[in-house]
Amino acid sequence: MNANDNVIIAYKDAPARTVDAGGVTYAYRELGPKGDIPVVFFVHLAGTLDNWDPRIIDPIAKGRHVIAFDNRGVGASTGRVPDSVEAMADDAYAFITALGYGKVDIFSFSLGGMIAQALVVKHPDLVRKLVLTGTGPKGGKDMDKVARTTYWDIVRATLTRSDPKEFLFFNRNATGRPAARAFVNRLEERTTDRDAEIKVKAFQTQLKAIKKWGRGTPDDLSKITQPTLIANGDNDRMVPSILSDDLHRRIKNSELIIYPDSGHGGIFQYHDKFAPAAVDFLTR
Amino acid sequence: MNANDNVIIAYKDAPARTVDAGGVTYAYRELGPKGDIPVVFFVHLAGTLDNWDPRIIDPIAKGRHVIAFDNRGVGASTGRVPDSVEAMADDAYAFITALGYGKVDIFSFSLGGMIAQALVVKHPDLVRKLVLTGTGPKGGKDMDKVARTTYWDIVRATLTRSDPKEFLFFNRNATGRPAARAFVNRLEERTTDRDAEIKVKAFQTQLKAIKKWGRGTPDDLSKITQPTLIANGDNDRMVPSILSDDLHRRIKNSELIIYPDSGHGGIFQYHDKFAPAAVDFLTR
Repeated sequence: MNANDNVIIAYKDAPARTVDAGGVTYAYRELGPKGDIPVVFFVHLAGTLDNWDPRIIDPIAKGRHVIAFDNRGVGASTGRVPDSVEAMADDAYAFITALGYGKVDIFSFSLGGMIAQALVVKHPDLVRKLVLTGTGPKGGKDMDKVARTTYWDIVRATLTRSDPKEFLFFNRNATGRPAARAFVNRLEERTTDRDAEIKVKAFQTQLKAIKKWGRGTPDDLSKITQPTLIANGDNDRMVPSILSDDLHRRIKNSELIIYPDSGHGGIFQYHDKFAPAAVDFLTR
Repeated sequence: MNANDNVIIAYKDAPARTVDAGGVTYAYRELGPKGDIPVVFFVHLAGTLDNWDPRIIDPIAKGRHVIAFDNRGVGASTGRVPDSVEAMADDAYAFITALGYGKVDIFSFSLGGMIAQALVVKHPDLVRKLVLTGTGPKGGKDMDKVARTTYWDIVRATLTRSDPKEFLFFNRNATGRPAARAFVNRLEERTTDRDAEIKVKAFQTQLKAIKKWGRGTPDDLSKITQPTLIANGDNDRMVPSILSDDLHRRIKNSELIIYPDSGHGGIFQYHDKFAPAAVDFLTR
C-alpha cells in the first residue's frame, strides 16, 4: 500500500495538528500528497485556519503537500500577536523550521503576503516559489488605511447583518454580491473541528502591525529572485490594486494577474480561473 | 361589526405605515385596539421597527393601542439623524402630533428613554405615563462611554459571528447566553415587510448624540410628575444600572424594577415577568 493512498484531498477534512516552536504551540492543518516540498499558506488579517477558500486550497492540494497554520496568538495558536509584520515573519520561520522544512513554496493573501515578503527578504533560501495575492509592499501607498476601512466595513456589515468580508473583499454590484455570499458559504463547508475565532485584542494588534508596515521604509524587493505570482482584483479597497503593479515592477521574476470587476477577494471570486493558474505556477 | 374585530394583535403582522411631519416621512407600525390614548414605543440606538421584542409589545397591545416608529433618518423614516437627543425628542413630538394625538403613554428603551425624558421635560402635557427601561439621565455617570463599549462589542461580535446585542444586552454566562439567542431569534419572527437597516453614518450620529447627552447638564427631573416605571438588569454595561436608581430617586412618582443576573436587556431576558408588570403599570 502506497503511503499516499489515504491522503487527505479536501481541506475540510484535514485534521487539526500542533507543533511547538519558540515557546509557542502553532495550530496547523495539512493535506495533499507528501514528498515534494510543501506549499505553506499565509492567511489574512483576522484569518484563522477556517479562512481558506476550499476552491483554491483543494485544487493545489491535489498535486502538492499543503500546510496552513495559525499565526502566533491567532485561532488555536498560543502566545500573543506580535506588533510588527517582521515579527510575524519570524514566527512563520520558527513554525516552518519546527516542522523540519528547509525549503517551501508560499501561498499568501493580504496580511499573509506582507508576512511572506518579510520572510523572503530575511530568509531568501527558505523559499522556492512565492504567490502574493491581495497584498502590497512595505510602505505601499494607502496601506496604512486598512484599519479605517476595516472598522467602517465591520460596522456596515453589523448593521446589515452581513459578513464584513462581503464588503471588504468584493464589489457591491451584481457580480460581487453573489460571489461574496458564495465565498462566505464555502468557508462553512468544514462543519467539525473548526478553529477558534481571533480575539479582539489580537485583531487590533494585527491592524496596528499592518499600519506600521504601511508606514514603514520600503524593502529592496529586487532581492526577491524567486519565481513570484502576483494576483488581485482590479478594485481592491483594502490593499489598493495598484500596489500589485508596484510589486510586479519591483520583483523581477514575477507574473501579474489582475481580475476585472472584483476587489480584494478577486482570487476567490475568480477561483475557477485562479486555482488552475496557481496550480500551473506552483507545479511547472 | 365592531371596529376592533379585525384588530391586529401580533406586532409581526402590523402593516408598515407612514406619516409626514416637518418635511420628514416617518415610518411606523400600529397594533392593538384603538380608542384609548396610544402607547408610543421609543426605540434604542441603531434600532428600527424590527427591534421590538414581540414578547413585550404583544402583551401590551392585547389591551392597548400601540405605535412604534422609526426616528428621523433611521430605517424607513426619511431625513437625517439629528446630533442631539433633544432634537430627536422634537422629532418624536412632530411625529406624535402629526398622528393627531395630544396625549400618549410612552414605552422607551435605552436611547429611546433618553428621548422620552427630553420630550417629557419639554412637553409635559403630552405624556400621561412613562416607562423608562435600560436608560439613564442626561449627564449620567459613564453614559458618554456608550460608543466605546458599542464599538468594542461590534468587533467582538463580528469576530465570533454573533449579534452585538448578545454582548451589549446580556451577560455572558449560562443564563445570559441562551436568553440572548432567544431574544435575537424573536426579532426574526416577522418574516415579511421588514424595515430597512440603519446606515453607518446615521448610527455614528446617534452615538455622538448619546455622548453629548452623557456629558450634558442634568435636567431637573423633579419636573416629571407622570407615573413612571423604571426597569433594567442589575449589570448593564451600556447604561450603568445605578443610573436607574438615580432616575428613581429623582422622579418622584416612579417605581423601580431591577432584574438580577442580567444586563442592558434585562427586560427582554425577563419578559415573562416584565411584560405583565408593564401591562399592569400602563392599565391600572
